[in-house]
Amino acid sequence: MDYRKGSIGRVFSVRIDHGEDVLEGLSVLAIMEDIKSAFFIMLGAMGSADLVTGPKDKVVPPDIVWSKFDDVREIIGAGNIFWENGAPKIHLHGAAGSSKGITMGCIRKAAQAFMVVEIFIVEMDIAAKRVYDEKIGFSPMTFE
Amino acid sequence: MDYRKGSIGRVFSVRIDHGEDVLEGLSVLAIMEDIKSAFFIMLGAMGSADLVTGPKDKVVPPDIVWSKFDDVREIIGAGNIFWENGAPKIHLHGAAGSSKGITMGCIRKAAQAFMVVEIFIVEMDIAAKRVYDEKIGFSPMTFE
Amino acid sequence: MDYRKGSIGRVFSVRIDHGEDVLEGLSVLAIMEDIKSAFFIMLGAMGSADLVTGPKDKVVPPDIVWSKFDDVREIIGAGNIFWENGAPKIHLHGAAGSSKGITMGCIRKAAQAFMVVEIFIVEMDIAAKRVYDEKIGFSPMTFE
Repeated sequence: MDYRKGSIGRVFSVRIDHGEDVLEGLSVLAIMEDIKSAFFIMLGAMGSADLVTGPKDKVVPPDIVWSKFDDVREIIGAGNIFWENGAPKIHLHGAAGSSKGITMGCIRKAAQAFMVVEIFIVEMDIAAKRVYDEKIGFSPMTFE
Repeated sequence: MDYRKGSIGRVFSVRIDHGEDVLEGLSVLAIMEDIKSAFFIMLGAMGSADLVTGPKDKVVPPDIVWSKFDDVREIIGAGNIFWENGAPKIHLHGAAGSSKGITMGCIRKAAQAFMVVEIFIVEMDIAAKRVYDEKIGFSPMTFE
Repeated sequence: MDYRKGSIGRVFSVRIDHGEDVLEGLSVLAIMEDIKSAFFIMLGAMGSADLVTGPKDKVVPPDIVWSKFDDVREIIGAGNIFWENGAPKIHLHGAAGSSKGITMGCIRKAAQAFMVVEIFIVEMDIAAKRVYDEKIGFSPMTFE
């Protein structure tokens, strides 16, 4: 375990409109507003997304399983914004369900807003970056 | 995409007790405390809820699907509070599961607390209202 | 319904590393940093967890159903930290899914981080404790 404590900075209310890419929207916002350290919650609907639904087996580094949906799903999400190699990296976990079923995982690509997605970002003054760790095959939040 | 930035105001810890209506409780609180712009997280259990589990087809405005449960479900939720036509509007997405199954969607009616529901509301100084948009058939958070 | 209003205090970014116990990590942190009143969001993966997936029947106090997983699951969680009988009590609800399925509930034991779990804790100046209520068979957040 590692942690840092700090204070809350700015807060952002964000509306991603129908057909827009949710992850791209968050990345653009992070650059425009220079958001370097933040967490967020998300609710809305998505018309598609590519997500990682865990590893094939219980080993690290994992051989990850990709999943996707392109029907419409209601979404609840939690995520954070830190930077890796000079660019914002959006880490977003979400559950995505409809009357046809439910899936959840790490939403990484092609996350298209359906109707609307509403996001609330809380900025922190805690310096951290994403730094690749080859042992776990992922870039965890790493404090400076 | 549209967004506004601001600061955090008051925070509320709320306990909804067994048998009480969760959405009505939040609406009453929003009126009593004049909460005009806020997001929240929720955890607890519900004995019933009516929820929207996506559209029938991938078109806007959507023909929405209503679902319900009246057995008991564990809940995780994320939501927000803005006003529409002079009254608070609670937008709540949640996943609701038990040993019998799991559903998720936009919880809109008849959300009755079972044992207890705990809610943490973060108020923002970001002026926004819900304004109906007939193209998407919904009232998204709209900034002033 | 009961509630209190207040202000936000410190914020904590926490990384629980591969193989560590998530609930124990949060309890240790609450003691070290004297966190008495807080809520949090969580994302990451877990290699195992014991969770309560609702009551057997719709009665209070409930006869609860225990469930568990020990394959790896992607996690989204929301929780809070209050104290009960002089020790921190972590109340955590989460959805846990992979390509093999999805479950959700109140994560109470044996929650082992897989790769990494990232947590964002928001402290409040709202005095509350967990006090056992035999009518509902649970210790809800109770204001002082």
